[in-house]
Amino acid sequence: MESDSAVTRAMPGKVYLVGAGPGDPELLTVKAQRLLAHADVILHDDLVPAEILALAGPQASVASVGKRFGAEGTTQSEINARMIESASCGLEVVRLKGGDPGIFGRLAEEIDALDAAGVAFEVVPGITAGIAAAASLGISLTDRRKATRIVVITNHQARAKLGAASNDWRGLIRDDSTLLIYMPGHDFAGLRDELLAAGGAKDTPAAIVSRASAPDQRYRFTTVGELDKLPRMDSPAVVLIGTSLTCAHRRATASTSAALALDEAELILSSL
Amino acid sequence: MESDSAVTRAMPGKVYLVGAGPGDPELLTVKAQRLLAHADVILHDDLVPAEILALAGPQASVASVGKRFGAEGTTQSEINARMIESASCGLEVVRLKGGDPGIFGRLAEEIDALDAAGVAFEVVPGITAGIAAAASLGISLTDRRKATRIVVITNHQARAKLGAASNDWRGLIRDDSTLLIYMPGHDFAGLRDELLAAGGAKDTPAAIVSRASAPDQRYRFTTVGELDKLPRMDSPAVVLIGTSLTCAHRRATASTSAALALDEAELILSSL
Repeated sequence: MESDSAVTRAMPGKVYLVGAGPGDPELLTVKAQRLLAHADVILHDDLVPAEILALAGPQASVASVGKRFGAEGTTQSEINARMIESASCGLEVVRLKGGDPGIFGRLAEEIDALDAAGVAFEVVPGITAGIAAAASLGISLTDRRKATRIVVITNHQARAKLGAASNDWRGLIRDDSTLLIYMPGHDFAGLRDELLAAGGAKDTPAAIVSRASAPDQRYRFTTVGELDKLPRMDSPAVVLIGTSLTCAHRRATASTSAALALDEAELILSSL
Repeated sequence: MESDSAVTRAMPGKVYLVGAGPGDPELLTVKAQRLLAHADVILHDDLVPAEILALAGPQASVASVGKRFGAEGTTQSEINARMIESASCGLEVVRLKGGDPGIFGRLAEEIDALDAAGVAFEVVPGITAGIAAAASLGISLTDRRKATRIVVITNHQARAKLGAASNDWRGLIRDDSTLLIYMPGHDFAGLRDELLAAGGAKDTPAAIVSRASAPDQRYRFTTVGELDKLPRMDSPAVVLIGTSLTCAHRRATASTSAALALDEAELILSSL
């Protein structure tokens, strides 16, 4: 029986579950770039920008399998079926996911389906949004002088769990931790209240980065106590919280003041 | 005074703090590849493999600034001084760090020094070892059916803190968390005891990946209760712990059995 399974796995088709990175085509890995150029079939999430899809070879059939295609359950089964079908025909399939495939990307469900169908697969990591956001703001997620751990979480999940265990944030909002909150939603006043209730300090720096690394990236620094003043920003967005943001926050504030001072000087010059 | 600072920042030299990824040159970002080809000066960590350094252009001066150069303090000041000196001469500097520069990489200290010297800098993210390790084993770090958070930590730090707050692991070893332990050391019996004492379940899957994505990558699956049976492995290594490893663990065990069965079959054939 073992040799049967080995034979099934040796069929030529294969599925590459590939991270497309945060948005900037230059933050793709070299491997992702190569696989896109060679793939027969590319099934991609909605979030993957056109510049990255343009790296597909002329032979490729490129299709979006984003959420707009229907209800959650249907979509996932459909994606699984399409990957398995193509690989079973001997085709090389790239399943392209925003960021890193293994972080909030339903990778496990797709791997389980491929494995159950005896389809060969390989996971190719990508730069995840939280790490790209930190890089673009000049933030080190760990700092041996301050934060020595990173916690990656979604606001949605944390909130859903809050009813059952309201101390969820309590172990997380700590001086020695940098929090990366994916899918932070828009209820920043609620988030502030929960973090303060869990013992978070008002003056702990926080930031939101929307569409990290993309040309339309936006960011804003604030503090835990003033999270409610954050504007609504486009998805995908990440909220970063922790003392490791302190210096980047100061630099951003200083350069904004400098830029404002320069703007004023220019206004004076142009009005002369 | 603001315009002075703006003028200083507008000088042509610049330092790029770049992630070299986990080891496989194909897991470099396209941007890192481009910057390496154009840089005048490349200052790299010991862990960066020769294949990646070979991407430097013919104009580049390439130097290792790894730990072997002396005591910790001296080294860091020397690295800072070299970056600032080169950038001040108008050169383009790539400071190349293993993995992602913002994760356990002393990025904050280098940024602070560059900022204090008025040197322009940019952080270019990289694939960090823990994410590469998960990808290579076919593990999704989050799974909406199981683990919904990721905790990135070092064993060294956690242990050092254990005296002061012995419940450090208590909030971390949870069914809904995937733990990525960087710099796990070699005392796996000690780690097992601490995790069990903190309420960890014996049968929670665990894995160690040494030199993730490199040609000499090695890995081993185990459980929290049998962490002590892990062999000593080369650095850099990452220990992964959590229920999100369950299926990958099963697959690895199944394919090892299948491979063993095939080996036995071949032995029988070759002995005929």
